[in-house]
Amino acid sequence: MQDPVRIGLLGCGNVGSALVGLIGDNADVVAARAGVNIKVARIAVRDVARPRGVKVDQSVFTDDAASVVADSDIDVIVEVMGGVEVARKLITDALLAGKPVVTANKELIARHGPELFALAAKAGVDLLFEASVAGGIPLIRPLRESLAGVRIRRVMGIVNGTTNYILTRMTESGSSFSDALAEAQGLGYAEADPSFDVDGIDAAHKLAVLTGAAFGARVNFKGIYVEGIRRITAMDIQLAADLGYRIKLLGLARETAYGIEQRVHPCMVPLDAPIAHIEGVFNAVVIEGDFVGTTMFQGRGAGQGPTASAVVADLV
Amino acid sequence: MQDPVRIGLLGCGNVGSALVGLIGDNADVVAARAGVNIKVARIAVRDVARPRGVKVDQSVFTDDAASVVADSDIDVIVEVMGGVEVARKLITDALLAGKPVVTANKELIARHGPELFALAAKAGVDLLFEASVAGGIPLIRPLRESLAGVRIRRVMGIVNGTTNYILTRMTESGSSFSDALAEAQGLGYAEADPSFDVDGIDAAHKLAVLTGAAFGARVNFKGIYVEGIRRITAMDIQLAADLGYRIKLLGLARETAYGIEQRVHPCMVPLDAPIAHIEGVFNAVVIEGDFVGTTMFQGRGAGQGPTASAVVADLV
Repeated sequence: MQDPVRIGLLGCGNVGSALVGLIGDNADVVAARAGVNIKVARIAVRDVARPRGVKVDQSVFTDDAASVVADSDIDVIVEVMGGVEVARKLITDALLAGKPVVTANKELIARHGPELFALAAKAGVDLLFEASVAGGIPLIRPLRESLAGVRIRRVMGIVNGTTNYILTRMTESGSSFSDALAEAQGLGYAEADPSFDVDGIDAAHKLAVLTGAAFGARVNFKGIYVEGIRRITAMDIQLAADLGYRIKLLGLARETAYGIEQRVHPCMVPLDAPIAHIEGVFNAVVIEGDFVGTTMFQGRGAGQGPTASAVVADLV
Repeated sequence: MQDPVRIGLLGCGNVGSALVGLIGDNADVVAARAGVNIKVARIAVRDVARPRGVKVDQSVFTDDAASVVADSDIDVIVEVMGGVEVARKLITDALLAGKPVVTANKELIARHGPELFALAAKAGVDLLFEASVAGGIPLIRPLRESLAGVRIRRVMGIVNGTTNYILTRMTESGSSFSDALAEAQGLGYAEADPSFDVDGIDAAHKLAVLTGAAFGARVNFKGIYVEGIRRITAMDIQLAADLGYRIKLLGLARETAYGIEQRVHPCMVPLDAPIAHIEGVFNAVVIEGDFVGTTMFQGRGAGQGPTASAVVADLV
């Protein structure tokens, strides 16, 4: 077998640690599918001294991310650090140096995708981002490859597990938004400051990434209409149920005569639609196109394991 | 742009005609995704005189399939003729001639997949078969690529639309198997001789293809336990419903200590499992693996449009 492919990992939080674990635990699976071994050669973190609980030699850690990007022994950069500006600069430098990049950073792709893809194309290297949306569900690759001959009309989905968990609990127990939110926070499904999730911003980032993959469109992230679930009451949920509907926070993108329309807001979904039955922290995305009709993909949205799996798929 | 890729099409029934239509109608979409135009250069059929309703010049038709395979101007062979022995011979010759092959032939892959894949690997060309299972659902590519780092534990699915339609009708209307079968035949969802579908043989072929893709296993098609739905009564369905279950014909493959176990038979599926809600001619496949947990893919199983779309994905 050839020399291993040497990864430079930027960030080693939950996803980064899971990735190192997956590459270690499933090395045989990865090698069989990829035809080559993958080795995490360097890891850039803010605090080198902090224990990470990963089985790699301490010497691979550095706090100088730029040196990992510049290292001529590194074949591929994997960015799982999050944030926009620093990640953008590092990925830009990696692409300019001719290194392929795999990223899980949905906000970065949502805000700067077109400029980064143009750069990657110019440099003749890949910029892959399967992990940035619904890590446990293969989506970006099917959209771009498996449905390559299909004219896509509409993409629609539950892409935020936190809000779906809250709405599911409100439906099951009749509880208020604030009680369901507190429960989600207690379980670690929602942050102490939940606005990123409950106000629909996370869903909008993911929708922008999906829209770009589905329509090849230059997405104007600021043009997405976004409304979260804060104002949904127990009575709204009950009335919807009486009428045969579930309330779900959906992201929708569709072709119109005036371009691609994108919106994120709570929707009344009829109970006979399969997406009405996606409960708890699960995600699902429905794709409608000519020739294939409607296809739905569902699975665990977030979580370190699924996201790490998506990164490995891009690496392979 | 480069010269178009020239396709030699073997067979021009429903799927072949839909494929020619898709390549014509969505030429812009395909060219944008593939970076190259695709041209159906020659079509081998049994009866050249029979009208096909496709927009191609009559001169591309021939009744000499071997000459299409041998034609040095043909870049890729697409086999949508069905049947085993003739297709096997033609695909073998194409691979030996160094031509990549795309096939929709599940029975051929189920029966002779390992030998054909070995041949393709030796010749250094692709043998792709996304269209052979659940055309409208991207499955083979996600299994092999998007879940490349995952150790798959179990694959399970509703992979035959005819039997799922019959079971759905029995559930909805309380009708007998024979009445529901007659209804399916009237709608064109079941053949006059329905045994291929209702006895589980078609599902077993598809399961064998999925098992091969999921486990990389050398599948012993004859070793699959197969039981169809003929003996399911209206009372079985009613009793299952009273207990909170649906009866579904499932194909299952899982890892055991003794190798890969494969079976196709009617199952009691609890109503809170998403696969219980896959109705009518829709198909769904559930994949369970480490790191990602459970992922489900659903969509139209058969039909000429979805199958043609899957062929184009492989071509791209």
